[in-house]
Amino acid sequence: MQNGDVYDTGCPSRPIMEHVTSRWGVLVLHALRSETLRFSALRRKITGVSEKMLTQTLQTLERDGLVHREVFPVIPPHVEYSLTRMGEEVAGCVATLFTWIEGNTEAVLAAQARYDDAKHRVSHPVAT
Amino acid sequence: MQNGDVYDTGCPSRPIMEHVTSRWGVLVLHALRSETLRFSALRRKITGVSEKMLTQTLQTLERDGLVHREVFPVIPPHVEYSLTRMGEEVAGCVATLFTWIEGNTEAVLAAQARYDDAKHRVSHPVAT
Repeated sequence: MQNGDVYDTGCPSRPIMEHVTSRWGVLVLHALRSETLRFSALRRKITGVSEKMLTQTLQTLERDGLVHREVFPVIPPHVEYSLTRMGEEVAGCVATLFTWIEGNTEAVLAAQARYDDAKHRVSHPVAT
Repeated sequence: MQNGDVYDTGCPSRPIMEHVTSRWGVLVLHALRSETLRFSALRRKITGVSEKMLTQTLQTLERDGLVHREVFPVIPPHVEYSLTRMGEEVAGCVATLFTWIEGNTEAVLAAQARYDDAKHRVSHPVAT
């Protein structure tokens, strides 16, 4: 098989890219990079995610072979989520991206301020 | 200023992360990594994107200081898009992620088939 091509909407790599970079997918992969977590702990770590969206995201990533779901036969049920070997690899790429973003937030905010200031000057020119 | 924290919905790094990993944002950053492109050429490269969504995505990334928009004063107007230095850095992280996905598409498809097969066997058990 050839390598995938994420630019091709007909290539199966495109939906995989969309799962990995989805709003909650990136955060789940990154959150599980350092530790195995139960559903409730994952939900606390990823602020803003609904129970439904977290469930869907975990199922998608489990189906892709990136997340491992371990059910312990106890009462009440105990379910733990961790990364597979493939999940660790892709989460490593996500971590590099997050490190860049977290380290460059100040520079991006400065760029936003310059952009907004330039737009403002165009729409509100100083009378001469 | 401290580093950002993408897990914190109140941190400005979170929307930046969402711009970079957005459905079209990742593809625009990656498409501009190797070349400067006009709007029409970008749209041809990123199959499936609408004119409106590509315009919005480019504006967001320009405001974040990741994409540079150069307008040439000719008739008809000629506009070119390229990456800034910051854009090149973040696009490098995206490229690593895409390379992993494109190189592991076959393994992910195999995982999906195993998952679907296991689900099918649970819902359609063989009579014994």
